[in-house]
Amino acid sequence: MDYIQQLKEWLGSERVTTNPTVLEHHSHDESYHTPHLPDVVVFPQSAQEVSEIMKLANEQHIAVTPFGLGSSLEGHAIPYQGGISLDFSLMNQILEVRPQDFLVRVQPGVTRTQLNKELKKHGLFFSVDPGADATVGGMAATNASGTTSVRYGVMRDQVRDLEVVLADGRIIHTGSMTAKSSSGYHLTGLFVGSEGTLGAFTELTLRVYGIPEATMASRACFPTVQDAVDTVVDILSAGVPVARIELVDERSIRQVNAYKETSYPEYPTLFIEFHGSEQGLAHDIDFAQSIAGEHGCTEFLFETDSKARAQLWDVRHNMAYAFIHKSPGKKMMVTDVCLPFSELAGAVVDAREAIDRSGLDGAILGHVGDGNYHVILMIDLDNPDEIARAEALNAHLVEYALSRGGTCTGEHGVGVGKAKYQRIEHGEALDVMQSLKQALDPKGILNPGKIFGA
Amino acid sequence: MDYIQQLKEWLGSERVTTNPTVLEHHSHDESYHTPHLPDVVVFPQSAQEVSEIMKLANEQHIAVTPFGLGSSLEGHAIPYQGGISLDFSLMNQILEVRPQDFLVRVQPGVTRTQLNKELKKHGLFFSVDPGADATVGGMAATNASGTTSVRYGVMRDQVRDLEVVLADGRIIHTGSMTAKSSSGYHLTGLFVGSEGTLGAFTELTLRVYGIPEATMASRACFPTVQDAVDTVVDILSAGVPVARIELVDERSIRQVNAYKETSYPEYPTLFIEFHGSEQGLAHDIDFAQSIAGEHGCTEFLFETDSKARAQLWDVRHNMAYAFIHKSPGKKMMVTDVCLPFSELAGAVVDAREAIDRSGLDGAILGHVGDGNYHVILMIDLDNPDEIARAEALNAHLVEYALSRGGTCTGEHGVGVGKAKYQRIEHGEALDVMQSLKQALDPKGILNPGKIFGA
Repeated sequence: MDYIQQLKEWLGSERVTTNPTVLEHHSHDESYHTPHLPDVVVFPQSAQEVSEIMKLANEQHIAVTPFGLGSSLEGHAIPYQGGISLDFSLMNQILEVRPQDFLVRVQPGVTRTQLNKELKKHGLFFSVDPGADATVGGMAATNASGTTSVRYGVMRDQVRDLEVVLADGRIIHTGSMTAKSSSGYHLTGLFVGSEGTLGAFTELTLRVYGIPEATMASRACFPTVQDAVDTVVDILSAGVPVARIELVDERSIRQVNAYKETSYPEYPTLFIEFHGSEQGLAHDIDFAQSIAGEHGCTEFLFETDSKARAQLWDVRHNMAYAFIHKSPGKKMMVTDVCLPFSELAGAVVDAREAIDRSGLDGAILGHVGDGNYHVILMIDLDNPDEIARAEALNAHLVEYALSRGGTCTGEHGVGVGKAKYQRIEHGEALDVMQSLKQALDPKGILNPGKIFGA
Repeated sequence: MDYIQQLKEWLGSERVTTNPTVLEHHSHDESYHTPHLPDVVVFPQSAQEVSEIMKLANEQHIAVTPFGLGSSLEGHAIPYQGGISLDFSLMNQILEVRPQDFLVRVQPGVTRTQLNKELKKHGLFFSVDPGADATVGGMAATNASGTTSVRYGVMRDQVRDLEVVLADGRIIHTGSMTAKSSSGYHLTGLFVGSEGTLGAFTELTLRVYGIPEATMASRACFPTVQDAVDTVVDILSAGVPVARIELVDERSIRQVNAYKETSYPEYPTLFIEFHGSEQGLAHDIDFAQSIAGEHGCTEFLFETDSKARAQLWDVRHNMAYAFIHKSPGKKMMVTDVCLPFSELAGAVVDAREAIDRSGLDGAILGHVGDGNYHVILMIDLDNPDEIARAEALNAHLVEYALSRGGTCTGEHGVGVGKAKYQRIEHGEALDVMQSLKQALDPKGILNPGKIFGA
């Protein structure tokens, strides 16, 4: 292919490669979705280079799929039409920390832990924690969130400005360094979550936060999932500054106990983390405990010491491992619906029944402050019946959520896995999204097949 | 005009009017921008009606300008091409309060105080407070904010879902009832702040909050504006839950003293409001006071009682009145730039110097937790020299902000007043905005002349 030769001559064969191992590495993400090889992997070092690559690809109708670390969960980074996998690992510089502005300017290949290590020197931290040590570019592309969004918001809330290279090679900035703006259309919000289908990010200006004076963690057990969720609603209603609220159902705790040989109480359990000042937190925790008590809480433990905190959250952290460990050779499939709070308890109970009916083994964990929960399933990709049952379960959970004002994906994004639910969820709004896509990428070279399907 | 007759026959002459008084009322907003009459004012009662009106207008290339209460400040609601002024005052129902979900579903003509009156029954409140008793539809159209956004965010952060009627009459929903979603493009964020140029809102689902257990207000005086801003940065950095932080410069306080015959200390002053639990706040205020002390704060008063609180905020509330009162027959012009925090103190000092140089009288007040400040000028619209000086001052403040990573409008929106700064602020991103506009409103019937200029 001519364009690969052209790129090699221009950028050198180290940064433009068709090495089979490298191609294979860029053929999949962490999901169960079928891999597909790119034709070439290109490692740009600047927005200008990305722009030139894009112009070439656009002229020659070559598909371009941005690639961060491949930690996406719905096949976002899989280049189903081959073409160029655009790997941002060489663009991983932290360009500027502005402590007074609570801002940091970074390249897209910077990872979450890399960023937090640097920010710590300034008494700051970056709040979004999706679990994986993803790149900030990838996190912006999928509008990632995770455990802390109940307090600090999702990825979209942190992005103040993006430098974006469009399909035709134009380089634009979508925002500014200000906390707010009413100037023109909100392009930042549009590009965040666009999954590489509208442009490639080459720089991000992100909001960061002061490291809280004190952090406390607690674990609280409840008779029913409904009691746990009701507690969360009351805590949020009172404005208690909780930074994380995670729900794990009793069956999942039983599985951790079996795996870790522990004896955690096998009840629906909330894991809560509080950020604030030391004195303020003492009061907040008292208050949260009294609310939990009103909803039948049978055990409420809390810790400030970081080691004891980690122990308290041990169940939550070990849940995925407990499942992976007992399922060697299987691949993880994670569901990701989100509902209004009032529908969450019912959804979690229904999900547990649906898992049981399916005959599959599944853990349930929820970012319950957001109404978002996951079912973690381990499936054997060589067993079509198991795949079919897992997909049917996923479809059931999505339909349940959509019929109750929910969404088919709270934080993982659409990729290829949720493309089939887009029409049901968005109706004619999907046509509007397609018009926007058509306006900005008329040849359809940018991450084709994602969001809108093949 | 045929279409007016058509509309009258269909909707009746009470809801389709060319009455001169009604036309005049819809020819202006609260700004100094030149009025222009619509050809007709139409009062729809449902999304279906808006859809039919839109189809008719689109077929016949008639301009459609949505109208809430006309409280916009940059000419947003002025129908410069005549046509239809689409008045939403008959669509003012609160459709559903969902306390467990912290959500409310409303029609666009609902006003802020109307909404809060209803929410109070449920122990909830709607956070955005732009000063004027605007409609929620108008607030969403301009991405309004105001004093509380430092804690609760701007209008865009509150909107979960919009029902939008597009230029061709299609009715779409942009979001869902969930706290977060990664499903498809973020249309909600795109439509919020689009100033009626992409569609008309016929229903909004908004996030609301629990009324805090306790509210405290404080007033703190500082030797310099820089000291006041540094205090704000330190307070925010520590994560103290401040709900409002307003800055008033010394000259503005002098003017209030003259108007109200009061003797408030004539120093740069911060007005701070804290929301939280009673015990938590006591600690937070101590903490804020000690931070202020480190920055030379000479007077730090606080009050919990609502009457005393109101008195404490008296200066802040009376500022606009103090200026209006002493300028009978003049019209208010309010600037609205926003900067990164680190640039705010310099900008406010520069603004005061620029006001003095201009020979105009101006108050400065800032939503300093957001980096957003306003200069309130009273100008004589019959005096071209005064208008020219005010516009030159406005241009100076915008250029200062744009050259330092800021934006030309923090919360008022572009309308016609800030259209001339869009290219400077957005560069090629403005072309992207125009592509989106073209994709959704190819005939340009929706609020023509706004954002992109004539």
